[in-house]
Amino acid sequence: MLEEMAMQVDKNIVVKKFGGTSVGALERIENVATRVIRDQSRGESPVIVVSAMSGETNRLVRLANDLDPYYRGAAYDMLLASGEQVAVALLTIALEKRGAKAAPLLAHQVGIQTDALFSKARIRSIDTTKISSLVEQNIIPVVAGFQGVTEDDQITTLGRGGSDTTAVALTAALKGSACEIYTDVPAVYSADPRLVAKARELKTVTFEEMMEMASVGSKVLHFRAVEIAAKYNIKIHSRSSFEDRDGTWVMAEENMLENPVVSSVTHDPSTVVIQLNPVPAGAAFLANLFARLAEKNIVVDIITQSASDSPSAHTQRLHFSIPEEDLPQTQKLLQEILKNETEVKVMRDMAKISVIGVGMKNHPGVAARFFKIFKERNVDVHLVTTSDIKISAVVAKSQLKEVAEALHTEFDLDV
Amino acid sequence: MLEEMAMQVDKNIVVKKFGGTSVGALERIENVATRVIRDQSRGESPVIVVSAMSGETNRLVRLANDLDPYYRGAAYDMLLASGEQVAVALLTIALEKRGAKAAPLLAHQVGIQTDALFSKARIRSIDTTKISSLVEQNIIPVVAGFQGVTEDDQITTLGRGGSDTTAVALTAALKGSACEIYTDVPAVYSADPRLVAKARELKTVTFEEMMEMASVGSKVLHFRAVEIAAKYNIKIHSRSSFEDRDGTWVMAEENMLENPVVSSVTHDPSTVVIQLNPVPAGAAFLANLFARLAEKNIVVDIITQSASDSPSAHTQRLHFSIPEEDLPQTQKLLQEILKNETEVKVMRDMAKISVIGVGMKNHPGVAARFFKIFKERNVDVHLVTTSDIKISAVVAKSQLKEVAEALHTEFDLDV
Repeated sequence: MLEEMAMQVDKNIVVKKFGGTSVGALERIENVATRVIRDQSRGESPVIVVSAMSGETNRLVRLANDLDPYYRGAAYDMLLASGEQVAVALLTIALEKRGAKAAPLLAHQVGIQTDALFSKARIRSIDTTKISSLVEQNIIPVVAGFQGVTEDDQITTLGRGGSDTTAVALTAALKGSACEIYTDVPAVYSADPRLVAKARELKTVTFEEMMEMASVGSKVLHFRAVEIAAKYNIKIHSRSSFEDRDGTWVMAEENMLENPVVSSVTHDPSTVVIQLNPVPAGAAFLANLFARLAEKNIVVDIITQSASDSPSAHTQRLHFSIPEEDLPQTQKLLQEILKNETEVKVMRDMAKISVIGVGMKNHPGVAARFFKIFKERNVDVHLVTTSDIKISAVVAKSQLKEVAEALHTEFDLDV
Repeated sequence: MLEEMAMQVDKNIVVKKFGGTSVGALERIENVATRVIRDQSRGESPVIVVSAMSGETNRLVRLANDLDPYYRGAAYDMLLASGEQVAVALLTIALEKRGAKAAPLLAHQVGIQTDALFSKARIRSIDTTKISSLVEQNIIPVVAGFQGVTEDDQITTLGRGGSDTTAVALTAALKGSACEIYTDVPAVYSADPRLVAKARELKTVTFEEMMEMASVGSKVLHFRAVEIAAKYNIKIHSRSSFEDRDGTWVMAEENMLENPVVSSVTHDPSTVVIQLNPVPAGAAFLANLFARLAEKNIVVDIITQSASDSPSAHTQRLHFSIPEEDLPQTQKLLQEILKNETEVKVMRDMAKISVIGVGMKNHPGVAARFFKIFKERNVDVHLVTTSDIKISAVVAKSQLKEVAEALHTEFDLDV
């Protein structure tokens, strides 16, 4: 018994998540296998989490949408989960071919329990019995990311990028203190380098900043993953699967020496703004509308509301933004809810631009500097939202690049 | 309680299996959904079994083989099983889009238990609780064919064509008397029409004949499916998913009025003959060799053995045939087992041609008529095997067509 305990303590478990591009082709899967075995030979006990091969989830989504763009439910999640299944199987084969012992594991085999909110399920618990037992036997567990299973054994998925969440939740369940997230970029950047040429790599980012970045459209890490990491104080090491050097550490603010006022300029290029005018005044209508949207798992991002032009009418104007992918479902729902007199205006080709930084909490005047950039360039701001450490604005997609570069310079982020 | 019993009796459960070509594209999946709902509106309670979309299993096999052509195990089966998962999900979406209620079900969700012989697993039991409960609620169960799950929750597959077996086993478990197998051909033919232009549709085939046809390479029905159908006396209706008329009924011999001497000419175009000379005389070597091949799940088909040319030596010659796909594994194994003095000759591009008919049991002289065809055409026969109701010969693939047509004519099968 004591010997068993000692063995458990001896194991240096490191959860390593490989994203879609890291397993996007067979030669990349071979590279991942080689790397994992090297890490094992250096004394780590790797626990692998994989996403679907890049492009595969999009292909599956297209198949489902071609059949029925409105359908979301058990079959949709089962469909998408097949992508991770393929990647898990192939990586296991590549590991075993190299003489390692590996075990392919789907969510129902591990026991990754979620709620039943299909397409956007949340992990409730992970049973570590099987994984711990495999690690004890020096068998590398290769776990499907992104998927879970409900109490009554239906397959769920965690939303795009959900494999990050699987990896962090697994680290927490295994009582680890750090988790490696491998992607096709070497680090988290101060802005998307494809948009802002002078973007630079960040050595560290706080959980808070990373959550804001994830929630405003940065594709680097899944929001929920960072939320869980913050809760259990798990450091996330976001790094490249193609290089060997360190990437960006996402960690608690108290671990950092100093924080810039703004650490990143982040954007989401797929935003749609919906304007409704007139709708009934008062909170009842809003409560109903947003409850109905929430039922469909549509995340309403920024909401602004104002009195109608005609002061006598008991009506209001309502503007809100949603992700472009949720537009068909939203339009369908609005048709059901709205009366004929309400004009629905859909503004496509919008983008959201945000500045984020924990230093903002102690530095006034960030908002003034932010809006100055728009004013100087005559860029219309359609919606605005702020938090303690973030300011976001929705602008026309055509003006995104200009504004992003200017903000990046304004907040001293350029290389 | 009585009412429940009555309801159960009322349900007219029909298991319908749709093969890869029937679900090979989205519009075909839509057609299947329309057909299933029509059948439901006519009073049937459909239980659907689906294969992977055509081409998908081959694509997955290629991925695995590109990584490691020798690997067979849990990850391989998990990989292949993803194909059926996709088809199940898409058909469910297509059914629900049409207003039907449908439930997507994988093997572990249904409880299709198999042994742990990966790639060639055999079904041990099916738990019908979930399916029966869905049928009671008028929800159409859409079940993944081809896959099963071991006692310790690992995914297995039943071998190529295994979805037929899922469908027949499910029919047996649900105590049905007939099962519909939908394919891209309207019926079982007296020969492959692509090979023999004068091939004709068969109205009925006995279980025995169908088993022989399946075992010698006819791709119409999976051998194990027919075996289970025979055991539980389940009629199989093999028919086209593109037409509405009856196809071929596979059933017990006693249901038939009359049986032709030969009912079909069947072929397998992917045979390899392996010649070993010399190998040690006696049964010990043979027992070891074929046990080792069996361990690898390689099905050795025809075996012939003869003394070596040198009468003093305690050696023998050995010829046997295997499916082309098992050649890499077989060669690897032979390298391990054989000593240097044994010459291994691999004859590729071979084909097996067979005549099958339950009437053969009561009609002597079939073998003589069979070999006459080869002799008249100077076609070399490399291996021969016979059963009560079948004679098979291995010939060069280049001579297959000529021989098949001649045999079809000889045994009065031409249209």
